[in-house]
Amino acid sequence: MKLPKPISNLIDYFERLPGIGPKTAQRLTFSLLNFPQEELERFSDSLTQLKKGTKLCRVCKNVTENDICSVCDDPLRDNKVIAVVASPLDAFALEKTNFKGVYHVLHGIIDPLNNIGPEEIFIKDLIERIKSLVEENSFENIHEISAIEIILATNTSMEGESTAMYISKLIRESGFDDKNLKITRIARGLPVGGDIEYADDITLSRALEGRLSI
Amino acid sequence: MKLPKPISNLIDYFERLPGIGPKTAQRLTFSLLNFPQEELERFSDSLTQLKKGTKLCRVCKNVTENDICSVCDDPLRDNKVIAVVASPLDAFALEKTNFKGVYHVLHGIIDPLNNIGPEEIFIKDLIERIKSLVEENSFENIHEISAIEIILATNTSMEGESTAMYISKLIRESGFDDKNLKITRIARGLPVGGDIEYADDITLSRALEGRLSI
Repeated sequence: MKLPKPISNLIDYFERLPGIGPKTAQRLTFSLLNFPQEELERFSDSLTQLKKGTKLCRVCKNVTENDICSVCDDPLRDNKVIAVVASPLDAFALEKTNFKGVYHVLHGIIDPLNNIGPEEIFIKDLIERIKSLVEENSFENIHEISAIEIILATNTSMEGESTAMYISKLIRESGFDDKNLKITRIARGLPVGGDIEYADDITLSRALEGRLSI
Repeated sequence: MKLPKPISNLIDYFERLPGIGPKTAQRLTFSLLNFPQEELERFSDSLTQLKKGTKLCRVCKNVTENDICSVCDDPLRDNKVIAVVASPLDAFALEKTNFKGVYHVLHGIIDPLNNIGPEEIFIKDLIERIKSLVEENSFENIHEISAIEIILATNTSMEGESTAMYISKLIRESGFDDKNLKITRIARGLPVGGDIEYADDITLSRALEGRLSI
Protein backbone atom coordinates (compact mmCIF):
# COMPACT_ATOMS: atom_id res chain seq x y z
CA MET A 1 0.00 0.00 0.00
CA LYS A 2 1.47 3.32 -1.04
CA LEU A 3 0.32 6.36 0.90
CA PRO A 4 -1.43 8.97 -1.27
CA LYS A 5 0.97 11.75 -2.33
CA PRO A 6 -0.82 14.57 -0.43
CA ILE A 7 -0.46 12.53 2.75
CA SER A 8 3.17 11.51 2.31
CA ASN A 9 4.05 15.12 1.41
CA LEU A 10 2.71 16.40 4.68
CA ILE A 11 4.35 13.57 6.63
CA ASP A 12 7.68 14.61 5.07
CA TYR A 13 7.25 18.17 6.29
CA PHE A 14 6.34 17.16 9.81
CA GLU A 15 9.36 14.86 9.95
CA ARG A 16 11.65 17.80 9.34
CA LEU A 17 10.56 19.45 12.58
CA PRO A 18 12.71 18.89 15.68
CA GLY A 19 11.70 15.92 17.83
CA ILE A 20 9.18 14.58 15.29
CA GLY A 21 9.96 11.05 14.09
CA PRO A 22 8.26 9.10 11.28
CA LYS A 23 5.56 7.62 13.55
CA THR A 24 4.60 10.95 15.09
CA ALA A 25 4.62 12.61 11.67
CA GLN A 26 2.16 9.96 10.44
CA ARG A 27 -0.05 10.36 13.47
CA LEU A 28 -0.14 14.16 13.12
CA THR A 29 -0.92 13.98 9.41
CA PHE A 30 -3.73 11.45 9.77
CA SER A 31 -5.23 13.41 12.65
CA LEU A 32 -5.38 16.45 10.37
CA LEU A 33 -7.59 14.45 8.00
CA ASN A 34 -10.32 14.86 10.60
CA PHE A 35 -10.02 18.67 10.61
CA PRO A 36 -12.55 20.65 8.54
CA GLN A 37 -11.03 22.11 5.37
CA GLU A 38 -11.45 25.72 6.65
CA GLU A 39 -9.37 24.87 9.69
CA LEU A 40 -6.63 23.45 7.48
CA GLU A 41 -6.70 26.64 5.41
CA ARG A 42 -6.29 28.74 8.53
CA PHE A 43 -3.47 26.52 9.80
CA SER A 44 -1.87 26.85 6.39
CA ASP A 45 -2.26 30.64 6.42
CA SER A 46 -0.63 30.93 9.81
CA LEU A 47 2.37 29.02 8.42
CA THR A 48 2.87 31.44 5.53
CA GLN A 49 2.26 34.42 7.82
CA LEU A 50 4.74 33.21 10.43
CA LYS A 51 7.72 34.96 8.87
CA LYS A 52 5.85 37.50 6.73
CA GLY A 53 4.15 38.93 9.81
CA THR A 54 7.21 39.10 12.03
CA LYS A 55 10.59 40.83 11.97
CA LEU A 56 13.58 41.09 14.25
CA CYS A 57 13.59 43.88 16.83
CA ARG A 58 16.01 46.61 15.73
CA VAL A 59 17.56 46.70 19.20
CA CYS A 60 17.59 43.15 20.61
CA LYS A 61 16.93 40.93 17.53
CA ASN A 62 14.02 39.18 19.22
CA VAL A 63 11.09 38.33 16.94
CA THR A 64 8.40 40.98 17.00
CA GLU A 65 5.63 42.48 14.91
CA ASN A 66 6.98 46.04 15.10
CA ASP A 67 10.35 47.71 14.58
CA ILE A 68 11.07 47.54 18.28
CA CYS A 69 9.83 44.72 20.50
CA SER A 70 7.57 45.23 23.50
CA VAL A 71 10.42 44.58 25.94
CA CYS A 72 12.85 47.11 24.42
CA ASP A 73 9.98 49.57 24.10
CA ASP A 74 8.98 49.32 27.77
CA PRO A 75 10.31 52.30 29.77
CA LEU A 76 10.00 50.29 32.99
CA ARG A 77 12.65 47.75 31.92
CA ASP A 78 16.27 48.37 32.80
CA ASN A 79 18.05 48.59 29.45
CA LYS A 80 21.42 48.52 31.18
CA VAL A 81 20.96 44.88 32.19
CA ILE A 82 21.14 42.77 29.04
CA ALA A 83 20.59 39.01 29.09
CA VAL A 84 22.30 37.45 26.07
CA VAL A 85 20.32 34.39 24.91
CA ALA A 86 20.63 31.99 21.99
CA SER A 87 16.98 32.00 20.86
CA PRO A 88 13.66 33.83 21.29
CA LEU A 89 12.40 30.81 23.25
CA ASP A 90 15.15 31.32 25.82
CA ALA A 91 14.10 34.95 26.26
CA PHE A 92 10.52 33.74 26.62
CA ALA A 93 11.62 31.32 29.36
CA LEU A 94 13.56 33.99 31.27
CA GLU A 95 10.54 36.27 30.99
CA LYS A 96 8.66 33.96 33.36
CA THR A 97 11.19 34.66 36.13
CA ASN A 98 10.27 38.32 36.58
CA PHE A 99 13.56 39.39 35.03
CA LYS A 100 13.37 43.17 34.60
CA GLY A 101 16.27 43.76 32.23
CA VAL A 102 16.28 43.45 28.45
CA TYR A 103 17.52 40.78 26.04
CA HIS A 104 19.89 40.26 23.20
CA VAL A 105 18.97 37.31 21.00
CA LEU A 106 21.94 35.74 19.19
CA HIS A 107 19.79 33.45 16.98
CA GLY A 108 22.17 30.58 17.34
CA ILE A 109 25.27 29.51 19.15
CA ILE A 110 28.87 29.10 18.05
CA ASP A 111 29.11 25.50 16.88
CA PRO A 112 32.10 24.78 14.60
CA LEU A 113 30.97 21.20 14.00
CA ASN A 114 27.83 22.54 12.33
CA ASN A 115 29.66 25.38 10.57
CA ILE A 116 28.27 28.13 12.78
CA GLY A 117 30.93 30.70 13.53
CA PRO A 118 30.68 34.02 15.44
CA GLU A 119 29.76 35.83 12.20
CA GLU A 120 26.65 33.72 11.68
CA ILE A 121 24.99 34.95 14.86
CA PHE A 122 24.26 38.44 16.22
CA ILE A 123 27.47 38.90 18.23
CA LYS A 124 28.72 41.96 16.31
CA ASP A 125 25.36 43.66 16.95
CA LEU A 126 25.77 42.98 20.66
CA ILE A 127 29.18 44.67 20.74
CA GLU A 128 27.76 47.68 18.84
CA ARG A 129 24.87 47.81 21.25
CA ILE A 130 27.14 47.75 24.31
CA LYS A 131 29.33 50.42 22.74
CA SER A 132 26.45 52.87 22.27
CA LEU A 133 25.11 52.01 25.74
CA VAL A 134 28.50 52.85 27.28
CA GLU A 135 28.65 56.13 25.34
CA GLU A 136 25.10 57.10 26.32
CA ASN A 137 25.84 56.53 29.97
CA SER A 138 29.24 58.19 30.16
CA PHE A 139 27.62 61.65 30.31
CA GLU A 140 25.43 60.80 33.26
CA ASN A 141 26.20 61.91 36.77
CA ILE A 142 28.94 59.59 37.92
CA HIS A 143 27.39 59.19 41.36
CA GLU A 144 24.05 58.06 40.11
CA ILE A 145 25.25 55.71 37.44
CA SER A 146 24.26 52.10 37.77
CA ALA A 147 26.65 49.73 36.07
CA ILE A 148 25.88 48.09 32.78
CA GLU A 149 25.55 44.32 33.20
CA ILE A 150 25.80 41.73 30.46
CA ILE A 151 24.33 38.41 31.67
CA LEU A 152 25.49 35.56 29.46
CA ALA A 153 22.45 33.29 29.52
CA THR A 154 23.30 30.67 26.91
CA ASN A 155 22.77 26.97 27.60
CA THR A 156 25.20 25.22 29.91
CA SER A 157 26.10 22.78 27.12
CA MET A 158 29.62 22.75 25.71
CA GLU A 159 28.58 25.02 22.83
CA GLY A 160 26.71 27.35 25.18
CA GLU A 161 29.69 27.62 27.53
CA SER A 162 32.18 28.31 24.76
CA THR A 163 29.87 30.90 23.16
CA ALA A 164 29.61 32.66 26.55
CA MET A 165 33.39 32.49 26.96
CA TYR A 166 33.94 33.87 23.45
CA ILE A 167 31.56 36.78 23.99
CA SER A 168 33.01 37.73 27.37
CA LYS A 169 36.52 37.71 25.89
CA LEU A 170 35.35 39.82 22.94
CA ILE A 171 33.72 42.40 25.20
CA ARG A 172 36.83 42.69 27.37
CA GLU A 173 39.01 43.08 24.27
CA SER A 174 36.76 45.77 22.81
CA GLY A 175 38.37 48.31 25.14
CA PHE A 176 35.30 49.54 27.02
CA ASP A 177 35.94 51.33 30.26
CA ASP A 178 35.10 48.33 32.39
CA LYS A 179 34.59 50.20 35.67
CA ASN A 180 30.90 50.33 34.78
CA LEU A 181 30.63 47.17 32.74
CA LYS A 182 29.98 43.89 34.51
CA ILE A 183 29.89 40.56 32.65
CA THR A 184 28.14 37.70 34.44
CA ARG A 185 27.23 34.10 33.65
CA ILE A 186 24.08 32.37 34.91
CA ALA A 187 24.75 30.03 37.85
CA ARG A 188 25.45 26.38 37.26
CA GLY A 189 24.48 24.08 40.09
CA LEU A 190 21.87 21.62 41.20
CA PRO A 191 18.38 22.18 39.77
CA VAL A 192 15.74 22.84 42.44
CA GLY A 193 14.59 19.50 43.88
CA GLY A 194 17.89 17.93 42.80
CA ASP A 195 19.65 15.06 44.54
CA ILE A 196 23.31 15.52 45.49
CA GLU A 197 23.70 11.75 45.38
CA TYR A 198 22.74 11.58 41.71
CA ALA A 199 24.32 14.83 40.48
CA ASP A 200 27.23 14.44 38.08
CA ASP A 201 30.74 15.51 39.16
CA ILE A 202 30.92 18.63 37.03
CA THR A 203 27.54 19.95 38.14
CA LEU A 204 28.45 19.29 41.74
CA SER A 205 31.80 21.06 41.54
CA ARG A 206 30.09 24.00 39.79
CA ALA A 207 27.54 24.05 42.60
CA LEU A 208 30.36 24.23 45.15
CA GLU A 209 32.25 26.94 43.25
CA GLY A 210 29.10 29.02 42.99
CA ARG A 211 28.08 28.73 46.63
CA LEU A 212 26.52 31.81 48.20
CA SER A 213 26.59 32.97 51.82
CA ILE A 214 23.19 32.82 53.44
CA MET B 1 6.61 39.90 26.81
CA LYS B 2 3.73 39.05 24.55
CA LEU B 3 4.46 36.70 21.68
CA PRO B 4 3.82 38.26 18.25
CA LYS B 5 0.40 37.27 16.89
CA PRO B 6 1.72 35.27 13.89
CA ILE B 7 3.75 33.15 16.30
CA SER B 8 1.03 32.58 18.90
CA ASN B 9 -1.43 31.72 16.09
CA LEU B 10 0.78 28.93 14.83
CA ILE B 11 1.47 27.69 18.36
CA ASP B 12 -2.30 27.44 18.88
CA TYR B 13 -2.68 25.26 15.79
CA PHE B 14 0.16 22.93 16.74
CA GLU B 15 -1.32 22.56 20.21
CA ARG B 16 -4.51 21.16 18.75
CA LEU B 17 -2.66 18.18 17.28
CA PRO B 18 -2.61 14.95 19.30
CA GLY B 19 0.32 14.55 21.68
CA ILE B 20 1.55 18.13 21.19
CA GLY B 21 1.63 20.15 24.41
CA PRO B 22 2.29 23.89 24.82
CA LYS B 23 6.08 23.48 25.11
CA THR B 24 6.39 21.30 22.02
CA ALA B 25 4.10 23.64 20.07
CA GLN B 26 6.40 26.54 20.96
CA ARG B 27 9.48 24.61 19.98
CA LEU B 28 8.00 23.57 16.63
CA THR B 29 6.86 27.10 15.84
CA PHE B 30 10.17 28.73 16.68
CA SER B 31 12.06 26.10 14.71
CA LEU B 32 9.95 27.00 11.67
CA LEU B 33 11.24 30.57 11.95
CA ASN B 34 14.55 29.19 10.66
CA PHE B 35 12.94 27.72 7.51
CA PRO B 36 13.18 29.68 4.28
CA GLN B 37 9.88 31.31 3.30
CA GLU B 38 9.51 29.08 0.19
CA GLU B 39 9.68 26.00 2.40
CA LEU B 40 6.95 27.41 4.62
CA GLU B 41 4.82 28.06 1.54
CA ARG B 42 5.25 24.48 0.41
CA PHE B 43 4.48 23.14 3.89
CA SER B 44 1.41 25.36 3.90
CA ASP B 45 0.34 24.11 0.45
CA SER B 46 0.62 20.51 1.52
CA LEU B 47 -1.73 21.30 4.41
CA THR B 48 -4.44 22.70 2.15
CA GLN B 49 -3.93 19.89 -0.36
CA LEU B 50 -4.16 17.18 2.30
CA LYS B 51 -7.91 16.81 2.01
CA LYS B 52 -8.41 18.39 -1.41
CA GLY B 53 -6.08 15.87 -2.99
CA THR B 54 -7.48 12.78 -1.28
CA LYS B 55 -10.81 10.99 -1.11
CA LEU B 56 -12.18 7.86 0.47
CA CYS B 57 -11.96 4.63 -1.52
CA ARG B 58 -15.40 3.69 -2.84
CA VAL B 59 -14.96 0.13 -1.61
CA CYS B 60 -13.00 0.18 1.65
CA LYS B 61 -13.16 3.87 2.73
CA ASN B 62 -9.41 4.11 3.09
CA VAL B 63 -7.86 7.46 2.05
CA THR B 64 -6.69 7.41 -1.55
CA GLU B 65 -6.06 9.68 -4.52
CA ASN B 66 -8.36 7.74 -6.88
CA ASP B 67 -11.87 6.37 -6.73
CA ILE B 68 -10.59 2.99 -5.68
CA CYS B 69 -7.49 2.54 -3.52
CA SER B 70 -4.42 0.59 -4.60
CA VAL B 71 -5.25 -2.31 -2.28
CA CYS B 72 -8.84 -2.80 -3.50
CA ASP B 73 -7.62 -2.35 -7.08
CA ASP B 74 -4.96 -5.06 -6.79
CA PRO B 75 -6.12 -8.36 -8.39
CA LEU B 76 -3.55 -10.27 -6.31
CA ARG B 77 -5.24 -9.40 -3.02
CA ASP B 78 -7.90 -11.69 -1.64
CA ASN B 79 -11.04 -9.54 -1.46
CA LYS B 80 -12.83 -12.22 0.54
CA VAL B 81 -10.65 -11.59 3.58
CA ILE B 82 -11.56 -8.20 5.00
CA ALA B 83 -9.71 -6.68 7.97
CA VAL B 84 -11.97 -4.15 9.68
CA VAL B 85 -9.86 -1.34 11.15
CA ALA B 86 -10.65 1.92 12.91
CA SER B 87 -8.31 4.22 10.97
CA PRO B 88 -6.15 4.39 7.81
CA LEU B 89 -3.08 4.27 10.07
CA ASP B 90 -4.19 0.88 11.40
CA ALA B 91 -4.48 -0.43 7.84
CA PHE B 92 -1.03 0.99 7.17
CA ALA B 93 0.33 -0.89 10.20
CA LEU B 94 -1.26 -4.20 9.14
CA GLU B 95 0.16 -3.69 5.67
CA LYS B 96 3.65 -4.21 7.12
CA THR B 97 2.75 -7.76 8.18
CA ASN B 98 2.36 -9.14 4.64
CA PHE B 99 -1.39 -9.39 5.10
CA LYS B 100 -2.83 -10.31 1.70
CA GLY B 101 -6.50 -9.53 2.23
CA VAL B 102 -8.24 -6.16 1.93
CA TYR B 103 -9.41 -3.57 4.45
CA HIS B 104 -12.49 -1.81 5.64
CA VAL B 105 -11.77 1.47 7.39
CA LEU B 106 -14.43 2.51 9.91
CA HIS B 107 -12.96 6.00 10.48
CA GLY B 108 -13.63 5.87 14.19
CA ILE B 109 -14.80 3.59 16.89
CA ILE B 110 -18.03 3.38 18.85
CA ASP B 111 -17.49 5.57 21.88
CA PRO B 112 -20.69 6.69 23.62
CA LEU B 113 -18.78 8.92 26.06
CA ASN B 114 -17.60 11.00 23.11
CA ASN B 115 -20.95 10.83 21.32
CA ILE B 116 -19.78 8.47 18.60
CA GLY B 117 -22.48 5.93 17.81
CA PRO B 118 -22.56 3.18 15.13
CA GLU B 119 -24.08 5.64 12.62
CA GLU B 120 -21.10 7.99 12.83
CA ILE B 121 -18.67 5.40 11.43
CA PHE B 122 -18.72 3.24 8.28
CA ILE B 123 -20.44 0.18 9.76
CA LYS B 124 -23.47 0.30 7.46
CA ASP B 125 -21.15 0.33 4.47
CA LEU B 126 -19.41 -2.76 5.81
CA ILE B 127 -22.69 -4.67 6.03
CA GLU B 128 -23.59 -3.62 2.46
CA ARG B 129 -20.17 -4.70 1.30
CA ILE B 130 -20.45 -8.12 2.94
CA LYS B 131 -23.93 -8.51 1.48
CA SER B 132 -22.77 -8.00 -2.10
CA LEU B 133 -19.73 -10.15 -1.49
CA VAL B 134 -21.95 -13.00 -0.30
CA GLU B 135 -24.22 -12.58 -3.34
CA GLU B 136 -21.29 -12.51 -5.76
CA ASN B 137 -19.87 -15.69 -4.32
CA SER B 138 -23.10 -17.70 -4.05
CA PHE B 139 -23.00 -18.50 -7.80
CA GLU B 140 -19.52 -19.95 -7.66
CA ASN B 141 -18.84 -23.65 -7.74
CA ILE B 142 -19.60 -24.79 -4.21
CA HIS B 143 -16.55 -27.03 -4.12
CA GLU B 144 -14.08 -24.32 -5.00
CA ILE B 145 -15.47 -21.61 -2.79
CA SER B 146 -13.19 -20.21 -0.15
CA ALA B 147 -15.05 -18.77 2.80
CA ILE B 148 -15.42 -15.06 3.33
CA GLU B 149 -13.59 -13.94 6.46
CA ILE B 150 -14.17 -10.72 8.38
CA ILE B 151 -11.22 -10.04 10.69
CA LEU B 152 -12.16 -7.54 13.38
CA ALA B 153 -8.90 -5.67 13.85
CA THR B 154 -9.90 -2.80 16.11
CA ASN B 155 -7.77 -1.86 19.13
CA THR B 156 -7.94 -4.10 22.19
CA SER B 157 -9.10 -1.15 24.30
CA MET B 158 -12.56 -1.19 25.84
CA GLU B 159 -14.00 0.82 22.95
CA GLY B 160 -12.22 -1.35 20.38
CA GLU B 161 -13.53 -4.54 21.95
CA SER B 162 -17.10 -3.33 22.17
CA THR B 163 -17.02 -2.06 18.58
CA ALA B 164 -15.80 -5.49 17.45
CA MET B 165 -18.52 -7.15 19.51
CA TYR B 166 -21.18 -4.84 18.07
CA ILE B 167 -20.10 -5.48 14.48
CA SER B 168 -19.95 -9.25 14.88
CA LYS B 169 -23.43 -9.23 16.42
CA LEU B 170 -24.72 -7.05 13.59
CA ILE B 171 -23.28 -9.34 10.90
CA ARG B 172 -24.78 -12.42 12.53
CA GLU B 173 -28.16 -10.71 12.80
CA SER B 174 -28.08 -9.62 9.16
CA GLY B 175 -29.13 -13.09 8.13
CA PHE B 176 -26.26 -14.07 5.85
CA ASP B 177 -25.83 -17.74 5.13
CA ASP B 178 -23.02 -18.20 7.64
CA LYS B 179 -21.68 -21.47 6.26
CA ASN B 180 -19.27 -19.45 4.18
CA LEU B 181 -18.87 -16.43 6.45
CA LYS B 182 -16.30 -16.50 9.20
CA ILE B 183 -15.92 -13.69 11.73
CA THR B 184 -12.61 -13.55 13.61
CA ARG B 185 -10.97 -11.25 16.11
CA ILE B 186 -7.22 -10.55 16.26
CA ALA B 187 -5.48 -12.48 19.04
CA ARG B 188 -4.99 -10.93 22.42
CA GLY B 189 -2.01 -12.19 24.38
CA LEU B 190 1.50 -11.30 25.39
CA PRO B 191 3.37 -9.03 22.98
CA VAL B 192 6.51 -10.60 21.54
CA GLY B 193 9.34 -10.24 24.05
CA GLY B 194 6.79 -9.93 26.86
CA ASP B 195 7.27 -11.02 30.45
CA ILE B 196 4.66 -13.32 32.00
CA GLU B 197 5.68 -11.99 35.40
CA TYR B 198 4.71 -8.43 34.51
CA ALA B 199 1.68 -9.13 32.31
CA ASP B 200 -1.66 -7.96 33.69
CA ASP B 201 -4.32 -10.54 34.66
CA ILE B 202 -6.64 -9.92 31.74
CA THR B 203 -3.90 -10.12 29.12
CA LEU B 204 -2.62 -13.32 30.70
CA SER B 205 -6.02 -15.00 30.79
CA ARG B 206 -6.59 -13.95 27.15
CA ALA B 207 -3.20 -15.47 26.29
CA LEU B 208 -4.28 -18.73 27.92
CA GLU B 209 -7.69 -18.76 26.22
CA GLY B 210 -6.05 -18.14 22.84
CA ARG B 211 -3.38 -20.82 23.17
CA LEU B 212 -2.49 -22.71 20.01
CA SER B 213 -1.22 -26.25 19.61
CA ILE B 214 2.35 -26.41 18.35
